[in-house]
Amino acid sequence: MAIKLQELAGRLGVELRGDGERYVHRVETLVRADDASLCFFGDRKYRAELSATRAAAVILAEPDVEFCPVAVLVSTNPYLAYAQAAQLLYPEPAVTGGLHPSAVVAPDACIDPSAWIGAMVVVEEGAEIGPRVFAGPGSIIGSGCRIDEDSRLVARVTLCTGTQVGKRVLIHPGAVIGREGFGFAKDGERWVRIPQLGRVRLGDDVEIGANTTVDRGALEDTLIADGVKLDNLIQIGHNCHIGENTAIAACSGISGSTRIGSNCTIAGAVGMAGHLTIGDDVHFTGMAMVTRSVTEPGLYSSGIPAMPNAQWRRNLARFRRLDGFARRLKSLEEKQDQTNIELQQEPE
Amino acid sequence: MAIKLQELAGRLGVELRGDGERYVHRVETLVRADDASLCFFGDRKYRAELSATRAAAVILAEPDVEFCPVAVLVSTNPYLAYAQAAQLLYPEPAVTGGLHPSAVVAPDACIDPSAWIGAMVVVEEGAEIGPRVFAGPGSIIGSGCRIDEDSRLVARVTLCTGTQVGKRVLIHPGAVIGREGFGFAKDGERWVRIPQLGRVRLGDDVEIGANTTVDRGALEDTLIADGVKLDNLIQIGHNCHIGENTAIAACSGISGSTRIGSNCTIAGAVGMAGHLTIGDDVHFTGMAMVTRSVTEPGLYSSGIPAMPNAQWRRNLARFRRLDGFARRLKSLEEKQDQTNIELQQEPE
Amino acid sequence: MAIKLQELAGRLGVELRGDGERYVHRVETLVRADDASLCFFGDRKYRAELSATRAAAVILAEPDVEFCPVAVLVSTNPYLAYAQAAQLLYPEPAVTGGLHPSAVVAPDACIDPSAWIGAMVVVEEGAEIGPRVFAGPGSIIGSGCRIDEDSRLVARVTLCTGTQVGKRVLIHPGAVIGREGFGFAKDGERWVRIPQLGRVRLGDDVEIGANTTVDRGALEDTLIADGVKLDNLIQIGHNCHIGENTAIAACSGISGSTRIGSNCTIAGAVGMAGHLTIGDDVHFTGMAMVTRSVTEPGLYSSGIPAMPNAQWRRNLARFRRLDGFARRLKSLEEKQDQTNIELQQEPE
Repeated sequence: MAIKLQELAGRLGVELRGDGERYVHRVETLVRADDASLCFFGDRKYRAELSATRAAAVILAEPDVEFCPVAVLVSTNPYLAYAQAAQLLYPEPAVTGGLHPSAVVAPDACIDPSAWIGAMVVVEEGAEIGPRVFAGPGSIIGSGCRIDEDSRLVARVTLCTGTQVGKRVLIHPGAVIGREGFGFAKDGERWVRIPQLGRVRLGDDVEIGANTTVDRGALEDTLIADGVKLDNLIQIGHNCHIGENTAIAACSGISGSTRIGSNCTIAGAVGMAGHLTIGDDVHFTGMAMVTRSVTEPGLYSSGIPAMPNAQWRRNLARFRRLDGFARRLKSLEEKQDQTNIELQQEPE
Repeated sequence: MAIKLQELAGRLGVELRGDGERYVHRVETLVRADDASLCFFGDRKYRAELSATRAAAVILAEPDVEFCPVAVLVSTNPYLAYAQAAQLLYPEPAVTGGLHPSAVVAPDACIDPSAWIGAMVVVEEGAEIGPRVFAGPGSIIGSGCRIDEDSRLVARVTLCTGTQVGKRVLIHPGAVIGREGFGFAKDGERWVRIPQLGRVRLGDDVEIGANTTVDRGALEDTLIADGVKLDNLIQIGHNCHIGENTAIAACSGISGSTRIGSNCTIAGAVGMAGHLTIGDDVHFTGMAMVTRSVTEPGLYSSGIPAMPNAQWRRNLARFRRLDGFARRLKSLEEKQDQTNIELQQEPE
Repeated sequence: MAIKLQELAGRLGVELRGDGERYVHRVETLVRADDASLCFFGDRKYRAELSATRAAAVILAEPDVEFCPVAVLVSTNPYLAYAQAAQLLYPEPAVTGGLHPSAVVAPDACIDPSAWIGAMVVVEEGAEIGPRVFAGPGSIIGSGCRIDEDSRLVARVTLCTGTQVGKRVLIHPGAVIGREGFGFAKDGERWVRIPQLGRVRLGDDVEIGANTTVDRGALEDTLIADGVKLDNLIQIGHNCHIGENTAIAACSGISGSTRIGSNCTIAGAVGMAGHLTIGDDVHFTGMAMVTRSVTEPGLYSSGIPAMPNAQWRRNLARFRRLDGFARRLKSLEEKQDQTNIELQQEPE
């Protein structure tokens, strides 16, 4: 899709400096751009590439304007303006209502005529599917599920019984929403399953990554609030609540009954114990090990970055003896005090 | 399903104090319960909620009876009694034998007439499917697989060639059982695949979580013993043996040829190196890094919990210099000894 | 399949000592082998089993010949010879061209007549599928995908729009290739998706494990070079480049825009931050936390192995006070210096 720079500037609410009659057809990197391309500049490391670009126009911030040889779209939040521009140039294709002939749909499922039910999709009893929902190939929509308008199951998504999906939700292939959680009681050495009777509820504008799993609640629902973004291969345990606009990167695992506030960012491969409370605006760096509740906003970290193996082995040996070090240090301090006393008692 | 308290107490083998003629229809939290609800009380933190509950009855332990305003079911293991009660109130629906018309079944597959083969299921050559097995939508049952009675593939489960599944096994969506393991020899810089000729065998009462992967053995079988419970997103490498009733939480990875004993619990995101031997009754806390065999029963841990980023950076800098610290400490001790010798040699 | 030892030795280019007319029918462990079995010996720990084996022949290195009671195939790289022998004895079944009647194929998809499109497979518009490709049951091949000759999607593989797959690629069940990556701009507290316009390109001889996810690039392509082997449950972020013959073990996560060189080995559950550059021949041990670029070849590690919980708690308490230790150590050193000065100033 092509758009005039003038119109683009208007839609983005940014200032254009350059020929507004020119069209851009696509987004590109600064290096690969040609005179039909729109680019984004945000990292000063690449200033040489900016100066040499042949793009039609570049979205950037005021201080970078002077280094750009072509038309500019000046924004106080260039990355956001770029995201919006790219969405205009590459709109999601409109959903055409209908059922693929290979789909298997329960007679009492309630499907809006504007929704698309793709190849090999299974829709079970009592499911409700709203306007313009896209159910990509191989998806399974369990009994009693509800999917609100404009949501998109890309392909091969599994929604287990009773899962509730909000509006404009995007779910990637392989995601499993609403599995019966991992709850057991012990009967001697045997584990006895505790029926998991809650559901999963996804708010509006939620995104769930590929092969990510969200377990249903034991009694109450697992809640993923509006605007939450989950990357790939994440585990969300039963009864978790994830607050609005919190984003979690790939390979993280949140144990059951943990509640995370709003506007948190959780980097990749973070692990959280169960039954914790994490406040709003709490941020964790990658691979952080979270074993206690955190109420204070801020940035939290753990883990020791990789180092050459020989150095690691040496430090490891020392770590194992930290306890001994502490005792030796204390003993030295006591002796030092004694020495000082003795020195002070010395005959002058 | 509704059940009389009297009958419930009898079935659970617990003592009822209250009106045995009353029916309970569902389980609920103490707060949301009404006069048709059965509740569980186990955590004294919620004693106020117990005192205020409107439930029909509460399952609890003797010392908590006095705080409960309604009928009680008194158990020495209330959590187990609750699990059993919930199973009675929410029985798995009975499996109706048959084949969904969309299923694709090899002519020589042997399927018990009481088993259900769901929509979009593929059953390959020579597979054997026992009584009352439930093969949920989109499951793939590879050639030569065997599934014993009363097992349940919830949906979209993949059993690769030759996988053997015991009785009452529960496998969640997206699980892949029997993938050819990760085995290669080096030919210069190239990797050459080693055919993986073993199978995966799952014992009775095993549970496999969503998107969990269990690789087939290289020559002998990978074994998951009776009663093992695996959560979501777990990797079990080729040739592993997991002992009876061992439970592993989500996001853990067990490298090839590692053998884990019985009655172990392995918390979330634990990583184990290959070719280890872990004894019975060994327990690991979350994110533990297991690089050596552990024979002694007990609780094992590793990892440093998250802390405010600034504090972490400071400690990290110190950790990197631990080796130097050790040397400085030793040097101080030597000097101290020297000082003491000198002090002892002082003229009095 | 059976093969004469003489012929086998010729094909492997190794020296046979023993009866060349004898057939081997299968590979087996030393213990289970009978007179139709071929074995491999590589670990001297098992020398007793070698001495007692009843195999037809054993592949081993020269120094081990004297301990073997049966025919030997002597190789300088016995593990490679074993891999090649096993491939000869257990050849992949030849692919029979055709379409399963349940497959759904777009009219303009271009499928080589020697390729197999299995049960429940979906092939979308414009996809190109080369000679002898095997598309196992339940796979989804998105619009504009290309799969080159002799590649194999085992079952239930998802290739998202535009994914390019080289020759002899092996992709295991549940893998999701080409998901739109995790890219957002912030609009106040809301996340705004950035369209992901690149593709994923897999080179020749690549292997992708079960439930592994590889995200498409934001603008340029995510590249997985020839000979790369990825195990199960791995996340590869958008714009990553993984160099030739690099192998990554299960549960690892590589964040977006990180570039890894050739011939690297990355053990299980390793986490890498984004925008890093890892050189050739760099190796990481399991659970390593990689936060900086590494250019020097070598072995890198991090993490503290599990220890008994009580010991861990003690060391953890010490770790939290490392900063204080450092200060106390420094103070001791200063006092010691002062003491020494004072001692030196003592009246003699």
